[in-house]
Amino acid sequence: MINIGIIGAGRIGKVHLQSITMHVKNACVKAVADPCMKEDTEIFVRGMGVEKICRDYRELLADPGIDAVLVCSSTDTHAAISIEAIEAGKHVFCEKPVDHALDRIEAVEEALAAHPGCKFQVGFNRRFDHNFAAVRKAYDQGKIGQAHILKITSRDPEPPNPAYIKVSGGMFLDMTIHDFDMACFLTDSDVEEVYVQSAVLVDPAIGEQGDVDTAIITMKMTNGALAVIDNSRRAVYGYDQRAELFGSKGMAATANDTPSTVILSNGEGITGEKPLYFFLERYMESFAEEMRQFVSACENGTPVPVGIHAGMQAVKIGLAARRSVEEHRPVKLAEL
Amino acid sequence: MINIGIIGAGRIGKVHLQSITMHVKNACVKAVADPCMKEDTEIFVRGMGVEKICRDYRELLADPGIDAVLVCSSTDTHAAISIEAIEAGKHVFCEKPVDHALDRIEAVEEALAAHPGCKFQVGFNRRFDHNFAAVRKAYDQGKIGQAHILKITSRDPEPPNPAYIKVSGGMFLDMTIHDFDMACFLTDSDVEEVYVQSAVLVDPAIGEQGDVDTAIITMKMTNGALAVIDNSRRAVYGYDQRAELFGSKGMAATANDTPSTVILSNGEGITGEKPLYFFLERYMESFAEEMRQFVSACENGTPVPVGIHAGMQAVKIGLAARRSVEEHRPVKLAEL
Amino acid sequence: MINIGIIGAGRIGKVHLQSITMHVKNACVKAVADPCMKEDTEIFVRGMGVEKICRDYRELLADPGIDAVLVCSSTDTHAAISIEAIEAGKHVFCEKPVDHALDRIEAVEEALAAHPGCKFQVGFNRRFDHNFAAVRKAYDQGKIGQAHILKITSRDPEPPNPAYIKVSGGMFLDMTIHDFDMACFLTDSDVEEVYVQSAVLVDPAIGEQGDVDTAIITMKMTNGALAVIDNSRRAVYGYDQRAELFGSKGMAATANDTPSTVILSNGEGITGEKPLYFFLERYMESFAEEMRQFVSACENGTPVPVGIHAGMQAVKIGLAARRSVEEHRPVKLAEL
Amino acid sequence: MINIGIIGAGRIGKVHLQSITMHVKNACVKAVADPCMKEDTEIFVRGMGVEKICRDYRELLADPGIDAVLVCSSTDTHAAISIEAIEAGKHVFCEKPVDHALDRIEAVEEALAAHPGCKFQVGFNRRFDHNFAAVRKAYDQGKIGQAHILKITSRDPEPPNPAYIKVSGGMFLDMTIHDFDMACFLTDSDVEEVYVQSAVLVDPAIGEQGDVDTAIITMKMTNGALAVIDNSRRAVYGYDQRAELFGSKGMAATANDTPSTVILSNGEGITGEKPLYFFLERYMESFAEEMRQFVSACENGTPVPVGIHAGMQAVKIGLAARRSVEEHRPVKLAEL
Repeated sequence: MINIGIIGAGRIGKVHLQSITMHVKNACVKAVADPCMKEDTEIFVRGMGVEKICRDYRELLADPGIDAVLVCSSTDTHAAISIEAIEAGKHVFCEKPVDHALDRIEAVEEALAAHPGCKFQVGFNRRFDHNFAAVRKAYDQGKIGQAHILKITSRDPEPPNPAYIKVSGGMFLDMTIHDFDMACFLTDSDVEEVYVQSAVLVDPAIGEQGDVDTAIITMKMTNGALAVIDNSRRAVYGYDQRAELFGSKGMAATANDTPSTVILSNGEGITGEKPLYFFLERYMESFAEEMRQFVSACENGTPVPVGIHAGMQAVKIGLAARRSVEEHRPVKLAEL
Repeated sequence: MINIGIIGAGRIGKVHLQSITMHVKNACVKAVADPCMKEDTEIFVRGMGVEKICRDYRELLADPGIDAVLVCSSTDTHAAISIEAIEAGKHVFCEKPVDHALDRIEAVEEALAAHPGCKFQVGFNRRFDHNFAAVRKAYDQGKIGQAHILKITSRDPEPPNPAYIKVSGGMFLDMTIHDFDMACFLTDSDVEEVYVQSAVLVDPAIGEQGDVDTAIITMKMTNGALAVIDNSRRAVYGYDQRAELFGSKGMAATANDTPSTVILSNGEGITGEKPLYFFLERYMESFAEEMRQFVSACENGTPVPVGIHAGMQAVKIGLAARRSVEEHRPVKLAEL
Repeated sequence: MINIGIIGAGRIGKVHLQSITMHVKNACVKAVADPCMKEDTEIFVRGMGVEKICRDYRELLADPGIDAVLVCSSTDTHAAISIEAIEAGKHVFCEKPVDHALDRIEAVEEALAAHPGCKFQVGFNRRFDHNFAAVRKAYDQGKIGQAHILKITSRDPEPPNPAYIKVSGGMFLDMTIHDFDMACFLTDSDVEEVYVQSAVLVDPAIGEQGDVDTAIITMKMTNGALAVIDNSRRAVYGYDQRAELFGSKGMAATANDTPSTVILSNGEGITGEKPLYFFLERYMESFAEEMRQFVSACENGTPVPVGIHAGMQAVKIGLAARRSVEEHRPVKLAEL
Repeated sequence: MINIGIIGAGRIGKVHLQSITMHVKNACVKAVADPCMKEDTEIFVRGMGVEKICRDYRELLADPGIDAVLVCSSTDTHAAISIEAIEAGKHVFCEKPVDHALDRIEAVEEALAAHPGCKFQVGFNRRFDHNFAAVRKAYDQGKIGQAHILKITSRDPEPPNPAYIKVSGGMFLDMTIHDFDMACFLTDSDVEEVYVQSAVLVDPAIGEQGDVDTAIITMKMTNGALAVIDNSRRAVYGYDQRAELFGSKGMAATANDTPSTVILSNGEGITGEKPLYFFLERYMESFAEEMRQFVSACENGTPVPVGIHAGMQAVKIGLAARRSVEEHRPVKLAEL
């Protein structure tokens, strides 16, 4: 049994609390810390059977009964809290991105090097999605052969509040970062070079914040494969999350998940349902699975499925993408 | 080169004329006979390069330059003209149904027995449809194993004019007869017994003509398989033509053909095109293929793909279906 | 909060225990009774936090702290235990079928008539499946118009042990009973008449038990719609569960659920995954949803979604189907 | 009636001869010229009813009975022969690419400017494909809204003979040129800038010829849309030809055409057919339609659907793509 403390009781913290309580064996959330926990959140947390609720995450780090912490606080605190937790002897699950600054991620790497027993997992939940995991499995089984072309489509149903744009680090570090990690995951490779063609087509207010809302991102992977991501901040038909891996022996492609398989035929056409609306519905099961695997790694001392290297890669790709937009040229990760 | 005469220049006669002219090698339509040919039809026939146009089909039968005739006249003349043509030494392609009366079909059988060199093909064109032919091919290749359950869905986009109902012999002999033949074709078997559950749900005027417009027809095939056909005279989304053959080793299922593969995704849903509208669009290629195979049989002396036995079976099943409705019980073909 | 006792700790009893514990708010399983509970079952039940485990279900009925019981015992005890529970003042969720004998189901009806406050739900979980519920919703919204033709395909991946055939009441009362209920649910109608064409094609041992393994069942619904069910005890590609409702305004059709949406393209073809293997995977979410709705009915005093009338209908249809096989004719439910 | 002469009796010349003969009303191929016509080609041409066969295309240009010529000769002669034909007063259908050199295409433009009555169409047949035409139609009808992202997948089943690589101008001018034109067609826009990420992953012999066999090409369209093409010289599952146009109001996406709609379900999975094998099968109907529209433009004096501007654009994009590979940077068409 792994006893867990959750640091940060925002949306994603609550998702993990519910996942662990309902879907993860051998794990129990013992404590939740948040400096500004709202009353309804507290009721929710209590309802999940959590005994200890506090404001200061350091209480959790000091508690010898807690084996692992989930760092679900605001992005700018991820790295610092992670390091404190590592040094306190806890296993750490850190939400993505680990940080926007490479030197702070390196500091986490150093802390981990000094604590080799520590399990440190980064929250790229989409790797655990049934569709994407099945593509990777087909690749691992040799059904794709050598990877040649990876295509990822990732489009949100609605753009975020423009006010959120700045704090989020912009589209590449906030939204595309999942796709960058997916590219590495599906090709089992790092990225060598990135080129971005982008535009503001959805909402001029996003452009006014210095960000883009539409992009095609081409990458050369270190294993020689080519990859392309297309992003939009608004797909009117809903959350569009697809991938297609093409190689020397075959192609594996995913479709969107829908609420049901029902097809309605009438005078207008043959109509299926729109994709599941947004990430909480689309990826709910993947949040549970990433927790199961984190708990299993903590319990059995096995490697985590998504380590600090993946956390570093995704941020590097995001920074290279930003520079590609600024300098309008392909950018190698080695330049960073 | 097979020289062909077409008897009857109605809709289906013109379809065959165009198919042969445009899509069949080694065949040429030399003459078309129709007792009441309209002017625009004559222009169409001339435009296809036909040299001889006449009113009396006997001119075609008497012409030694004609090798084969297509009997595309009204249903009640199919058998008589076929017999005359057989006796005149022509190969015969006869539109379906051969007749509504079994004794007249038997008369054709007798004529054929007396003229063993005559090629006689019945116009069940759907056997040559790319989708249905692919199901049969899978079955012949052993991919289905032993046939257990056959399901055929056959729904028209619009009911016929009520005035047409009576002369057509009713839904079973006019519309379902294609499905009866399809059941025999896809299971490579005859029918032993038929049961019909039917209703008038589309148009009360059809019921007033003594016919039905909606039916579920269950059949026991002589090879042991079970089969079911569902019919409607009106599907608001268009012409619905599907089959599914399920057996001990697998299942082959068809979908409807559509004008394009385009899927439109928007706030309303994920929408594909409706099926091709009606039989002339849906089955155009099958009309060409049945002619190619008829011409090939005539030219090479090989067996026709759809002989008089199939023509007899389909009518027998139709008559058994009518009796099943009248007597509200399963009817064996052996009872007829 | 509804406190629940589960009577019978076999497969389905454990499914409900897990569903309630993990997925149903406002409900808690307080006790589980089984006359011959195995040790590993007891460990499982304890692990779900159940306080009281006993052999005699009467202990549960006598416990004033228990509001509702789930009757998950063997079929031949469903009716008797249900009546005892109703008389003990409990709400009852009874697994299907309520009984194989109509008079015993009538006895339950009488008990319910005498206890009008009692909530009594029958375990037709498939009504709560996301696909089938979406078809019914489309029908209720008027998108289908008047129902004309309902088609249900229901095929198991493997036949049951022949020894099980007899105790189960045969295919119609064991397997097809779900489809009979589905026919009533999807057309929102009772059944007037049933005709069965059936065969033993999967396993002769099933025939030796006096049962069939393949069937096409045609029904006339009281609202005028026609319905057809096709059953097989073995589909080599897995559990095949589909429905298609066709009416005056459109058609709603479901497809099978699959583990993922991944399509693999290679030299062999374009291949998707097989359906989810069997009912526990395919219908897991529906088991949770039927419990949520039962608990809600108990808590709020609202009608249950599947009452004793549905439980009676499905058994009547099953008995009529058996008689149709025996007497080889269509059988009206009014004859029973 | 438009009388046509075909210059060049290679593969594509024969395709057009057959299309016109079988599928185009109001047109007739009167003559075919080829400096090195083989005997079996001559038999084929005669079989199509062509009266005049000659070696020198100038005989066709001199023949006052010929209204239009199809330039189907080798690429390096397209421009010169087109100019001669224009000056001889013929309408011209010129196969793609018009030329590899921009100045020679400009020479054609100049000839056309001097002969305003001349109809000049470029052979981008894929615009007439049922799937791609339906995407453009949806766009024209406003169903996509403003175009944001266009994705084109274009993969051949087999790489060409390496010896062919050099004469063909390389992948971008030989294969991708169709996709460049498709990008312009589907977005109804020219291209502003191109960036290519490419590799040799299929066959090292292609790299030895100085060409690539795998590429992701990103384009910025002049109307602001972003576009991406992914190419491979070998898809093991066959000819992969898809497009997806995403915009402010919706998305239209095509799938590959297959020989039939049959899906086979068995223990291995749920398998559909591979795409139609190669361009002659996949695009046969589009070759007929482009001829119909060319003939209609000649006959009625209406604009051709694909003029010299499109012919110029596609080559310019191809040259920019080549330069992008050489200089490893985005290249604007204005730089050429």
